[in-house]
Amino acid sequence: MKAFMDRDFLLCSETAKHLYHDYAADMPIIDYHCHLDPREICEDRQFENITQVWLGGDHYKWRLMRSAGVEEKYITGDASDREKFQKWAETLALAIGNPLYHWSHLELRNYFGYDGVLDGDTAEEVWQLCNEKLKSLSARKLIVSSKVKALCTTDDPADTLEWHRKLAEDESFPVKVLPSFRPDRALGIEKPDYLDYLKRLGEITSFAQLAEILKERLSFFVSLGCRVSDHGMESVPYAPADEAVIEAIFQKRLRGELPSACEQEQFRTALLLELGREYHRLGVVMQLHFGVIRDNSHRVFRALGPDAGIDSIGDAPSIKELAAFLGALDDTGELPKTILYSLNPNDNAALVTVMGAFQTGEAVGKLQHGSAWWFNDHKQGMIDQLTTLAADGFLAGFVGMLTDSRSFLSYARHEYFRRILCDLIGGWVENGEYPKKDEALRRIVEGVCYTNAERYFEL
Amino acid sequence: MKAFMDRDFLLCSETAKHLYHDYAADMPIIDYHCHLDPREICEDRQFENITQVWLGGDHYKWRLMRSAGVEEKYITGDASDREKFQKWAETLALAIGNPLYHWSHLELRNYFGYDGVLDGDTAEEVWQLCNEKLKSLSARKLIVSSKVKALCTTDDPADTLEWHRKLAEDESFPVKVLPSFRPDRALGIEKPDYLDYLKRLGEITSFAQLAEILKERLSFFVSLGCRVSDHGMESVPYAPADEAVIEAIFQKRLRGELPSACEQEQFRTALLLELGREYHRLGVVMQLHFGVIRDNSHRVFRALGPDAGIDSIGDAPSIKELAAFLGALDDTGELPKTILYSLNPNDNAALVTVMGAFQTGEAVGKLQHGSAWWFNDHKQGMIDQLTTLAADGFLAGFVGMLTDSRSFLSYARHEYFRRILCDLIGGWVENGEYPKKDEALRRIVEGVCYTNAERYFEL
Amino acid sequence: MKAFMDRDFLLCSETAKHLYHDYAADMPIIDYHCHLDPREICEDRQFENITQVWLGGDHYKWRLMRSAGVEEKYITGDASDREKFQKWAETLALAIGNPLYHWSHLELRNYFGYDGVLDGDTAEEVWQLCNEKLKSLSARKLIVSSKVKALCTTDDPADTLEWHRKLAEDESFPVKVLPSFRPDRALGIEKPDYLDYLKRLGEITSFAQLAEILKERLSFFVSLGCRVSDHGMESVPYAPADEAVIEAIFQKRLRGELPSACEQEQFRTALLLELGREYHRLGVVMQLHFGVIRDNSHRVFRALGPDAGIDSIGDAPSIKELAAFLGALDDTGELPKTILYSLNPNDNAALVTVMGAFQTGEAVGKLQHGSAWWFNDHKQGMIDQLTTLAADGFLAGFVGMLTDSRSFLSYARHEYFRRILCDLIGGWVENGEYPKKDEALRRIVEGVCYTNAERYFEL
Repeated sequence: MKAFMDRDFLLCSETAKHLYHDYAADMPIIDYHCHLDPREICEDRQFENITQVWLGGDHYKWRLMRSAGVEEKYITGDASDREKFQKWAETLALAIGNPLYHWSHLELRNYFGYDGVLDGDTAEEVWQLCNEKLKSLSARKLIVSSKVKALCTTDDPADTLEWHRKLAEDESFPVKVLPSFRPDRALGIEKPDYLDYLKRLGEITSFAQLAEILKERLSFFVSLGCRVSDHGMESVPYAPADEAVIEAIFQKRLRGELPSACEQEQFRTALLLELGREYHRLGVVMQLHFGVIRDNSHRVFRALGPDAGIDSIGDAPSIKELAAFLGALDDTGELPKTILYSLNPNDNAALVTVMGAFQTGEAVGKLQHGSAWWFNDHKQGMIDQLTTLAADGFLAGFVGMLTDSRSFLSYARHEYFRRILCDLIGGWVENGEYPKKDEALRRIVEGVCYTNAERYFEL
Repeated sequence: MKAFMDRDFLLCSETAKHLYHDYAADMPIIDYHCHLDPREICEDRQFENITQVWLGGDHYKWRLMRSAGVEEKYITGDASDREKFQKWAETLALAIGNPLYHWSHLELRNYFGYDGVLDGDTAEEVWQLCNEKLKSLSARKLIVSSKVKALCTTDDPADTLEWHRKLAEDESFPVKVLPSFRPDRALGIEKPDYLDYLKRLGEITSFAQLAEILKERLSFFVSLGCRVSDHGMESVPYAPADEAVIEAIFQKRLRGELPSACEQEQFRTALLLELGREYHRLGVVMQLHFGVIRDNSHRVFRALGPDAGIDSIGDAPSIKELAAFLGALDDTGELPKTILYSLNPNDNAALVTVMGAFQTGEAVGKLQHGSAWWFNDHKQGMIDQLTTLAADGFLAGFVGMLTDSRSFLSYARHEYFRRILCDLIGGWVENGEYPKKDEALRRIVEGVCYTNAERYFEL
Repeated sequence: MKAFMDRDFLLCSETAKHLYHDYAADMPIIDYHCHLDPREICEDRQFENITQVWLGGDHYKWRLMRSAGVEEKYITGDASDREKFQKWAETLALAIGNPLYHWSHLELRNYFGYDGVLDGDTAEEVWQLCNEKLKSLSARKLIVSSKVKALCTTDDPADTLEWHRKLAEDESFPVKVLPSFRPDRALGIEKPDYLDYLKRLGEITSFAQLAEILKERLSFFVSLGCRVSDHGMESVPYAPADEAVIEAIFQKRLRGELPSACEQEQFRTALLLELGREYHRLGVVMQLHFGVIRDNSHRVFRALGPDAGIDSIGDAPSIKELAAFLGALDDTGELPKTILYSLNPNDNAALVTVMGAFQTGEAVGKLQHGSAWWFNDHKQGMIDQLTTLAADGFLAGFVGMLTDSRSFLSYARHEYFRRILCDLIGGWVENGEYPKKDEALRRIVEGVCYTNAERYFEL
C-alpha cells in the first residue's frame, strides 16, 4: 500500500518513477491557455487569506460544495472567509475520487509546505498556516516558483493590452505573459449587447469592415507576442453562404433585428473562416472549445452572472460540421495549426481521427487534441485523452497540459498531468508494450511536458 | 489467483476487504426503486421450482438464451420447467463476463447455500437443491433475510394501492412496502388506449382537470408513504407552450385525434412540469428514466407483449432538453429532488455535470445520478458510474443501489454493488489517492450503502 | 517488468498464458472480411522491398507519418523507397501507445524473424533483412504460413470473379479464397458516375430490374462460395416508401437528375431491404459498416483519391434507424445473420443491446458485434468491444477477428487479438470472476478464435 500523496503519488512502477522524477518533474511550464488576469500579475497581487485564493472565483469548488448540500451563504454569500473555509474543508474531506481532492492537497504541499490532510478538524491549522505563508507569496512569486516560462492569458480583441505592454517592458519579471486573441463577443451576434460591443471595436458599418478591424486587432496582439487564439462555442458552426448573404445578415443585426438561428450560424461560419485564414497567415494557433451548455440555472445566473458553476457538458453531434469547417480552410491550404477541445469526452476518438485527416508536414501534430478539458481534467479523463491520442494519433507530438485557470496556484495541475503521463508510459514499458529505450522515452516525456509546446507555439 | 466467487469476491486489496466486510456487508437495504408485486408480498408468494423464480419473467435471461442460440420453446415456450432450466444452465455456463453469471451464483450462494458452479452437468443437482429449499422460502422470508428495511414498488396513479394498505396494517411484517407514483400512462397521449386509461382516472374533460386528478392521486399515494415518483420515456421532453395550446392539444386527443409529434412533446412537457412542481411541494423525489428504445422486434412483441427482452439503448441527443426541463423547474425554485437515469452509458459525464448546475443547499446531492441502470448494471458499468460521479460530482452523497427488479432474489445485486464500491474505494486508498482515515471511509461507505438513501428519501 | 514483446506479450497472468499458448495460438484463421486482391493471390505476388509491402497502400501508416510532421514527399510522394522507409522507422520509433507499433513488430517477428526494435538507427539493418527475406516470400506463402483456412475478399457485384474461379480450380493452393458481395456502388445513387456504373451491371430501366440483376449476381457469387456480403455507409438508412415512390426516384436518377437527400434515403432503404431478404433466403451473412465520414480533406482527395488516410469517425445518432431497419426484416422472419460495425466506439453498448432484441434460435449469435474496427483496432478498443459484448451479450458465441486489410502481413493482427482475448479471460479467471474450468475455457477461446466463425459462415 502506498502512502497518501507521497513523493511517488500516482507513480505505480519503477519506470514511471524514473520518468517522472528524472525527466518530467523539473521541466519548465508553458501555460499556453489560462485565464489569469494580467493586471494582477503586473501589480503582483497578494492575498489576505486562503479563502480569497481558493474560493474567490473557483466555480469547481462552488459546485462541489453545492453538491455536498452546503448553503449558498457559505459559498458565494456573506458568511465570513473563515466560515467558508470551514465548509470547504468539511466538503473536501469527503470528496473521494474528485480531482479537487488532489489539486488542493498538491497546492497545500507545493505552495504552503503542508503535508497533512485537510478536513474539518485540521481546517484551523491549515487556515493559520496558509494565511501566514500568503504574506510572503504573490502572483509573481507563485508563477516564478512554478517554473513557468511563458503563459498565455485570454483577451478580448477590444482590449488595450496595457498590462501586457507594461509586463513586456518590466525586465525584472522573467516570464513571458502573452495575450491570446479571443473574439467570442465579436462572433456573438445573438447577444442583446452585440451592437454595444461592436462600438468598442470601432465604427463598424459592414461585415467586411468587422473582419478588417478584427484582423487589425489580431496584428496588434501579434505585435505583443500573441501566438494563439481561442474560441468558445456550443458547437463549431458550418453553414457556408455567399458574401452578399452574410452582409445582409450583418446589416439586419446592425438595424437591431435578430437574425434567425440559421443566419446566425452562417454569420459565425463566415467570420470564423475569415479569422482562420488570418491565423494561418500570421502563424497564430487556433483553439476551438466546444461541447458546452452554459448557464443552465437562470436562477443562479441572475444572482451571480456567468462562470458561476452552472455550466455542463453538451451532447449535440458536432463532428461533421467540425470536419467540414476544417476542410474548408484546408481546401485552400489555409488551415492554421489548430487545437480541438470538446467538453464531451465521448468526442475524444472522433476528434483524434478528424485531426488525422488534416495533418501535414507543416508541423509535428499540426492539429492537436487539447488536454482533458474542464470537467474531464481528472485522472481517468487524462488517461482516456492520452490513450486515445496515442492509439489513433501521435502522442509524442502532443503539446500537453495547460491550466485554463484563474488561479495562481493551479500550476499544481501540471504536476498532476505529468505524474499521470509518466505512469501511463511507464506502465506500457513495464508491460512489454514499448521497449525500455531511455533516449526515446526521455524525448517523448520531455516533449509532452515542455519542448513540443515550445516548438509548436514558436516561443 | 483468487478462488471463484469466494468470500473476497471482487475485493482486490486489504482495504477493500476491510471496508466491505466490516462496514458494507451488514448494512440494511433500502430498495428505493423496484418492480416487485405488492400482492405477492402481501400474500407471501411461494415458488414451485427455480425455473419459475428465475425464468418466469426475467427478460435479461431470455435475451442471453436467445443470444446463445436457444430455441424460443425453451425460453418462453411450452418446454417443461426442467428442460428450460437445463438450457439456462448450459447457456449460463458459457456466459463469461456477463453479470448474470455473477448474480445467479450470488443468488445460489445466498439463498440456496450452493457453492458450486452451475452448468449443464450440475443442473440436475442444483434443480433438486433449489426446489427443496424453495419449499421453506417465500417472498417475505426472502425480503427479510436480505435485511431490507424499505422497498418502493412501481404503481400506476389509478392503482387502489389495496395491497400496500394491507401491508401497512400487517404488523407481523417489519418491512416498509411503499408505493411509487409512475404516471407513464397518463403522459402516453400517443397510445391507442389513452382515452380508456383516462377513464380509469375519472371523468376528465380538460388538461387542468387531468393535472388536478393526478395531484389528488399523488396526495393519496403520499398518504400511504409514497416518497418517490418515476417516469420512463425515450427522452426527456422540453417544448414549452401556452396553457391554451396545451388545452387544445388535449381536447384534440379527447376527440379521438392523434396530436402531432410536436404537440405530444408540448403536452408531455406541460404535464411533467405540473407534476415536477407538485413533487417539489410534497417532498417527493422525481426519478427520470430515459435513453431507451422499446419493443424493437414487432414479431416478438406480437407474441409476448412488452418486457420481452427486445428493448435497447437509444442514442438520441437528450442533454439540452433535459437541462432546459430541469432549468424551468429550478427557475421558480420548484425543482424537486431528482434522480437521473439514462440507459446510454455515454451520458454519464454529461448527466453528472447537468446535475452539478442545479445542486443547492436543500439536500446533500439534491440531484442524483442513478446507479448503473439495466444494461449497465454490470461490473464495468458500475465502476464507470461511480468513477464519473466521484470525479465530476460528490460520490459521498450518492443514494446508491436499487434493484429495479421483478425478482425476490435480486437483492444479491446490492451485494454485487457494495463489493464493487468497496473495491474501488479501497483501491484509491491503497494507491495513495485518498488517506486511510477510517472514520471518513466508514462514513462514505455506509452512506452510499444505506444512510444516504434513508436521509434522502426521508424514511 | 516484462521484456518488450516477448513470448508472453500482453499475457499478464498464468491463466492467460495457458489459454493463449495451449489453445489460441495454434488455431487456424478464417479471415471473413479483408481487402486482399484475389489476382495478387492467384498470381502469387512478390514484393521488391519492405516499403512496397508496408507503405504502398497503408493509409494507417500514412496518417501516422503526417501526424509526426513528415513531408508528403516521403509518404506518397517521389522520395525513394529507402528514404520512405527511413522516415517510417523514425516515426514508428516514437509511436508509443499506437497499435502500429505492435502490428509492425509482430510482423517483423513473425514473417522476417527480426526480434529487435525498429527505429532510425536500425532502419538500414531491417531494410536489408526484410528485403532479403522477401525474395523467398510471396502472397500465397504468407497466407499459408499464417494458417489461414479461408479468406473472404471484397468484390463488386459487377466483378467477373475470374481470379476467384481460377483460385478455386487451382488444387495446389489449400486456402479457400471466397468472394464477398459488396454492392456499395449499386446503392450509391448520389454519385456522379452512378449511371455509368449501372451499365456495368446490364441494361437497367427500372428499380425492380436493378434488384433482380443484383440478386442474379448474388446467386453467381454464392455459386463461387460467397458466404458474406458487405455494406459501407455513413449511417444505416431507414425511410420506408411505397414501391411506386421508389420507382419514381429511380427513374429520376435514370434521367440524370439527382434525387433529394430524403429520396436517396428512401432508395437506399428499399434496395437494402430487398438485398437483406435475399441474403436471408440464401443464407448469406450481412455485414453493415457505418459511423464513418469519408474523404474529409478535399485537397488530399484531389491528389490521391479515396483511401488516402483522410477518413474519420462520425457521430450522427444512428441507433434508431438501425433498429428500425433490422426490425423491418425481422418482422417477416427475413432478417439474415448480420454483423454490425460502427466506427464510433461510443456505439458499442447500444449496438450490443440492439442485437439482443433480434437474437433467435436460428444461430448462436445470429446478430454479431463486429470486432473492434479500423480506428478502434487497438488494445483498448478490443478490450472495450469484448467487455461490452460479454456484459450485454454472449461473448462465447462471437465470431472474432478479421483483418479488413489490404496487406498479406496483417494476419499478425489475429495474434494481437488472441493475446488480448486470452489476457482478458485469464484475468477474469484469476480474479475469481469465472471458474477455472478448463473445458469451458477452451471451448470459449477456441470458439472465438476459430470454430464460431467456421460454424457461423457455414464453411
